[in-house]
Amino acid sequence: MVQELDEGLPLEKVKDFSLEELLGMAIKAEIGARKFYESLAERLDIQALKEKIEWLADEEGKHEALLRNLYESMFPGKEVVFPGEHIGPELQPVARELHGAEDIIELIRWAMRAEEIAANFYAEIENIVEAEDKKRLMRYLSDMEKGHYYTLKAEYELLLDWSMYSQMMNLGP
Amino acid sequence: MVQELDEGLPLEKVKDFSLEELLGMAIKAEIGARKFYESLAERLDIQALKEKIEWLADEEGKHEALLRNLYESMFPGKEVVFPGEHIGPELQPVARELHGAEDIIELIRWAMRAEEIAANFYAEIENIVEAEDKKRLMRYLSDMEKGHYYTLKAEYELLLDWSMYSQMMNLGP
Repeated sequence: MVQELDEGLPLEKVKDFSLEELLGMAIKAEIGARKFYESLAERLDIQALKEKIEWLADEEGKHEALLRNLYESMFPGKEVVFPGEHIGPELQPVARELHGAEDIIELIRWAMRAEEIAANFYAEIENIVEAEDKKRLMRYLSDMEKGHYYTLKAEYELLLDWSMYSQMMNLGP
Repeated sequence: MVQELDEGLPLEKVKDFSLEELLGMAIKAEIGARKFYESLAERLDIQALKEKIEWLADEEGKHEALLRNLYESMFPGKEVVFPGEHIGPELQPVARELHGAEDIIELIRWAMRAEEIAANFYAEIENIVEAEDKKRLMRYLSDMEKGHYYTLKAEYELLLDWSMYSQMMNLGP
C-alpha cells in the first residue's frame, strides 16, 4: 500500500493566493485531518493509540473553529470559499479495515507528513499577514501542528517495533 | 515572580551516571511534572487551557509507567533509586492562587523549559543505551516531550495577547 504522497500546494505558491483563499484552504485541511483521524480512530482497536488519535481529531476540530472565527472577523458574513488547491497530502477518511501494524504505520506516516506541511504552511501565512494578532494566531496553529507531528512521530517510532509497542502498551504478548 | 531557573543536571554530566540512576531521575522528573500540571490545572479556570494541562498531567503519568516498566525489566525486583540530582527545573506543585495571565504565562514558560530539557535528556540516554529497543523507547519519550513543548509554546504565544486569547477561547470580553 506504499503510495507516493501528493504533497499539495508548494509553499512557494502560497504568496500567489489571497489571505481569504489561504484561510479557506486551511479550514479545508483541518476538516480533512479531523475526518481522517476520526475514521482512523474508529478502525483502531489499540486503546492507547485510539485515544491519542481521537485527541488529535478533537484538536483539529478546535483549529477549524478558530480559523472560522478569524475568517468571520476578516470577511464578515461571507461564506468560506474553498479553493481547489490543498495543503499537504489530501487525507481521505480511512474506509477499509486495517490489518496489522504495517497498515497503521503507513497511515501514521501520512498524517505526520500532513502535520509537518500544515505547520510550515501556517508559518508561511504568518509571514504574509501584517497584524500582530493574526501573526500570533498563525504561530499558535503552526506550533500546535508541530506538537501533533512529534506526538505522531513518537507513536510511529514505537510502532515500528510491534513486540515492544504491544509490551509497552500492555497489549499482552 | 520572574525567577532564574535552576536547570538541573547539565546534559554533559549524563554520562557520569549509571543507566539505573538516569532512569531514577527520569521517573522522578515525570512524577514532578505530573504533580506540577495537576496542581496547575486545579488553579486554572480557563476551561480550554485547564483541559490541555490535565492532558499533559495524564501523559506524564503514562511516561512514568513506561519508565517503571523499563526499570523493572532491567533491574527486576529492585526498588527505584531516586538520585538527588534532577533533570531540568525542579517543578514544584503550584501552591498559590494565580492572579491573571502574567502568573499563568510564567508557569507555562517554566513547563516549556522543563519539557525541552526532558526531550534533550531522553535523547542523551538514547545515545548511552545500546539495545535497539531501549533506544526506541528513549526516542519515543523524547519525541513526546517535544510534542508537549510545542503544545505549551502554542498556548504561551497566544496567552501573551490576553485579549486575543480570551476571544479565541470564547472567554467573552
